[in-house]
Amino acid sequence: MARIDKLVVVGVGLIGGSFALALKEAGAVGRVVGVGRRAGNIRRALELKIIDAAGAFDRDTFGDADLILLAMPVGQMRDVMRAIAPLLGDRSVVTDAGSTKEDVVALARKELRKSLARFVPGHPIAGTEKSGAEAAFAGLYRGRRVVLAPLKGTDAGALARVRSAWEACGASVFELQPREHDAVLASVSHLPHVLAYALVDQVARHKDAKRLFSYAAGGFRDFTRIASSHPEMWRDICIANKKALLAELDRYGRGLDRVRRMLDRGDAKALEAFFAGARDARDRWIKDKQ
Amino acid sequence: MARIDKLVVVGVGLIGGSFALALKEAGAVGRVVGVGRRAGNIRRALELKIIDAAGAFDRDTFGDADLILLAMPVGQMRDVMRAIAPLLGDRSVVTDAGSTKEDVVALARKELRKSLARFVPGHPIAGTEKSGAEAAFAGLYRGRRVVLAPLKGTDAGALARVRSAWEACGASVFELQPREHDAVLASVSHLPHVLAYALVDQVARHKDAKRLFSYAAGGFRDFTRIASSHPEMWRDICIANKKALLAELDRYGRGLDRVRRMLDRGDAKALEAFFAGARDARDRWIKDKQ
Repeated sequence: MARIDKLVVVGVGLIGGSFALALKEAGAVGRVVGVGRRAGNIRRALELKIIDAAGAFDRDTFGDADLILLAMPVGQMRDVMRAIAPLLGDRSVVTDAGSTKEDVVALARKELRKSLARFVPGHPIAGTEKSGAEAAFAGLYRGRRVVLAPLKGTDAGALARVRSAWEACGASVFELQPREHDAVLASVSHLPHVLAYALVDQVARHKDAKRLFSYAAGGFRDFTRIASSHPEMWRDICIANKKALLAELDRYGRGLDRVRRMLDRGDAKALEAFFAGARDARDRWIKDKQ
Repeated sequence: MARIDKLVVVGVGLIGGSFALALKEAGAVGRVVGVGRRAGNIRRALELKIIDAAGAFDRDTFGDADLILLAMPVGQMRDVMRAIAPLLGDRSVVTDAGSTKEDVVALARKELRKSLARFVPGHPIAGTEKSGAEAAFAGLYRGRRVVLAPLKGTDAGALARVRSAWEACGASVFELQPREHDAVLASVSHLPHVLAYALVDQVARHKDAKRLFSYAAGGFRDFTRIASSHPEMWRDICIANKKALLAELDRYGRGLDRVRRMLDRGDAKALEAFFAGARDARDRWIKDKQ
């Protein structure tokens, strides 16, 4: 790949920080400049050598950047795009790591204006429940999928630059339409996050919460791992992908009603078929992934 | 602890097999006899030296046993208790590993008759999503909780024997009333299992299932791990603990409705508070466990 001489990462957390570390490890980047709201986090990113310098929303930082990754929670996307639009140079390619794409594309169309052709909407499907620069690591994207959602007018060179950067991180790149992306992610990511948060909430609200938690074991721990994720990020994802997520929540409610009726009428055969069907589907998925 | 000269395990799967292996590792058991429905599984348990001999529902197997662990799915409990009741010697202590306790106690009262005082209802809160002798390992119970639910008339010596056997496996033993046990487990184990199965079912039923699964990542994998559990076992647990589980399902449905309304009205503040509250509760739990 063509080396990225200067990378700017806005939001140096788990996602942005790991992108910088992976590119450094691959020798695919020169200088990395980090921009962020929280001074403490930027300081930590400097200490951890995730970034080489702290930048700001000014022409020095953005004017000569080869690649800019927007990796803040989606709720900050509008303000950040508006701030950087007048600062971007003619060669700068912008991409993002937002977990939703329809809303990001709509914002980009409105805010990035003359740089729109060099904006490549993206979403690395990777993460952990941890957040902040402290959580970043170079291997996060190895073997994972990254979705790019180029627009009709997206510049081919810009797309190639973003694609090869993610490939240098060890990821496989796929292209989806923004709407497709959001529907897929609502189903396999956004819905389970809401479900996990809702289970923890239910146990925590219980009058006997302390005792309930004391008997929770490995199944509960793994089921709820994603409920330790970043609340602000998940607020923004849910709001941005509201329509698809509501549809998935409604389907889930109808599914639970079906199980509830099997259980209520003591239908052992139907319950076993339901459990066995789901188990087989999951086992096939795990096998196919390997 | 007093050594168990002869242990009989009915159902030599993950739970029963791991109990035998842990006691062997601790030097706390002499001879282990396994009884099971599937000849292939019993053969494998012999090969793996989980059991020393294969037994049957006869006096040779059960008459001189010091301890008998019933570790089959709860749906087989009635038949097994009925079969062993006339075979039990005067010294034999019986315990079980069933995931529900009210139903097991009711069955024991009816079926075990003169041996009831030497029956100690139990439930090791441990497991993986795997099943069968192949999945058993000596360390399964190390650092885990085991609930015993002795009855008013339970013999103190029988209770002590079961308690010390589980402690020899590395577990911590707690006592709960059967009804308390079932309510606690409905909340932190049975409900999440149903929720995980329901999510996999929803994705699998989707017309675009193959593509959805292809974008499912680590969060989905961990959330649904317990949906690879034994369908027959979970059928039996759900039916046995129907009342408590229906109550938990209904609470969960109301909880999801609350989230749905926050989302529908785009209430970012309420959503963030909901996510943050759940995250904090989970993080406290993880910290307290350590």
